[in-house]
Amino acid sequence: MKPKIDFLTIAVADLEKSVAFYKDGLGLPTKGIQKGNEDHCLFELAHGFRLVLYRRQEFLSLTQTSAEVAKSSGFIISYIADSRAEVDAILQQAIQAGAMQIGSTQDEPWGYSANFADPDGHHWEISFMPGNG
Amino acid sequence: MKPKIDFLTIAVADLEKSVAFYKDGLGLPTKGIQKGNEDHCLFELAHGFRLVLYRRQEFLSLTQTSAEVAKSSGFIISYIADSRAEVDAILQQAIQAGAMQIGSTQDEPWGYSANFADPDGHHWEISFMPGNG
Repeated sequence: MKPKIDFLTIAVADLEKSVAFYKDGLGLPTKGIQKGNEDHCLFELAHGFRLVLYRRQEFLSLTQTSAEVAKSSGFIISYIADSRAEVDAILQQAIQAGAMQIGSTQDEPWGYSANFADPDGHHWEISFMPGNG
Repeated sequence: MKPKIDFLTIAVADLEKSVAFYKDGLGLPTKGIQKGNEDHCLFELAHGFRLVLYRRQEFLSLTQTSAEVAKSSGFIISYIADSRAEVDAILQQAIQAGAMQIGSTQDEPWGYSANFADPDGHHWEISFMPGNG
């Protein structure tokens, strides 16, 4: 695992209002809301770091967690892996270190991902995204 | 405001256990727990980004928030400003955009800071740290 974080994803009650806050209010750069199965908005920050906003309900479906874990964690820390093998290796490393796996590893339209909760339930997502690594 | 985030600070129940998880388990680089009024542990990630761990109780004193806000937000997003004037300017920009100020701007042993909650209560800290900007 490289010492890096690629995304921070946060849950918001009102996506349009929060995009206005970050885009128009604070001036953070974005291409705006991306419509889809799960509308979201991606802000491109320095060094490729991204702040991502999801509506709370869709965020909860992203987290796939019990209500109990979700309650303690309004965010997801994301790491972009170089390969499927790195996703699996980091997940195993985390589990050996005491993490709790969330859901199962899965193939996604955009790649492959694994999720785990750290000892306090903070949600990490490890993804391989061949299209836009 | 530059499009950047400098720190992500998270609350943990057991600092030693969580440091072991991130340091020994995941292999993230750190000088270990820094003892002080508020023990914490700082992980140095790529591009100067830092993941910072505080015990939950001390984290809550950092956030200076009501229990209601604290409940919804297990993390603080931090931005390092270039000057006191930039701290003040960003705070004003955020308030005009609909943020709620948390506490008051204050002089700290290490500099100067302002805090606000975004429309969902996500906590931002804007700091000027002349010593270790």
